[in-house]
Amino acid sequence: MPRSGFSGSFRSPKIDVVIDMGNPFLNRTVDGFLKIGAVGACKVAAEETFECLHRGDVSKHKVEHALRKMCKEGAYWGTVAGVYVGMVYGVERVRGRSDWKNAMIGGALSGALISGASNSDRGKVVKDAITAGAVATAVEFINCIT
Amino acid sequence: MPRSGFSGSFRSPKIDVVIDMGNPFLNRTVDGFLKIGAVGACKVAAEETFECLHRGDVSKHKVEHALRKMCKEGAYWGTVAGVYVGMVYGVERVRGRSDWKNAMIGGALSGALISGASNSDRGKVVKDAITAGAVATAVEFINCIT
Repeated sequence: MPRSGFSGSFRSPKIDVVIDMGNPFLNRTVDGFLKIGAVGACKVAAEETFECLHRGDVSKHKVEHALRKMCKEGAYWGTVAGVYVGMVYGVERVRGRSDWKNAMIGGALSGALISGASNSDRGKVVKDAITAGAVATAVEFINCIT
Repeated sequence: MPRSGFSGSFRSPKIDVVIDMGNPFLNRTVDGFLKIGAVGACKVAAEETFECLHRGDVSKHKVEHALRKMCKEGAYWGTVAGVYVGMVYGVERVRGRSDWKNAMIGGALSGALISGASNSDRGKVVKDAITAGAVATAVEFINCIT
């Protein structure tokens, strides 16, 4: 039976950058930094593109501003992810098992570290650590569900 | 060879609430709501406990305030997680495959839905959708690393 129709497929480009630092801890940290940094940069790119389309004007100054913001936010997301991934790996090695508590402890430690690096109010650091631990635990649970 | 020493083990209590709604979509959504809602409530409990210890005073009023906040924040976290988990499941069924793009699309849809429910500024809804999609993608990538 002859059939007519249109069949197409679209494959998104796949880039996998592998950098071997010769140490699983460093490998994961660098991997987290690069991947999540790229996601952060893409997020800013999408946001700025929407902004330009919405306002309807594109200028050299705006593009430069967007690029700077991409680098800044990408580096921030990457750093947070790198610290978190490294922490979870460290906690896993120390505890010797792999469950959701690693994510909680790793998240809390990363939150404390990142918050402590940017401000010195002890109360705020503890609260950020609690929030980061809770978010990491929630993410771990969501993983198990999806 | 006689050995002396102390060996103890601590196992945290394990509670698993399973509610069967007779439909995988509903099951996941309810599961996400309950688990992440509990995480959100625990986060507020930890925060308020720290607050009380920090300030050094506990009053009936404070405890009531903390309980109310636990319920409110737990319900919010639970709703967000339920919507996200449901969306990802829906996207997975529609696309027929399971990869990081499900998380991105599901995250963006949930972000748009939740943002659209609370404010009517179209620009803000789109930006929230972009941010939610980026966060969901980042989380999915972090999963693969850890």
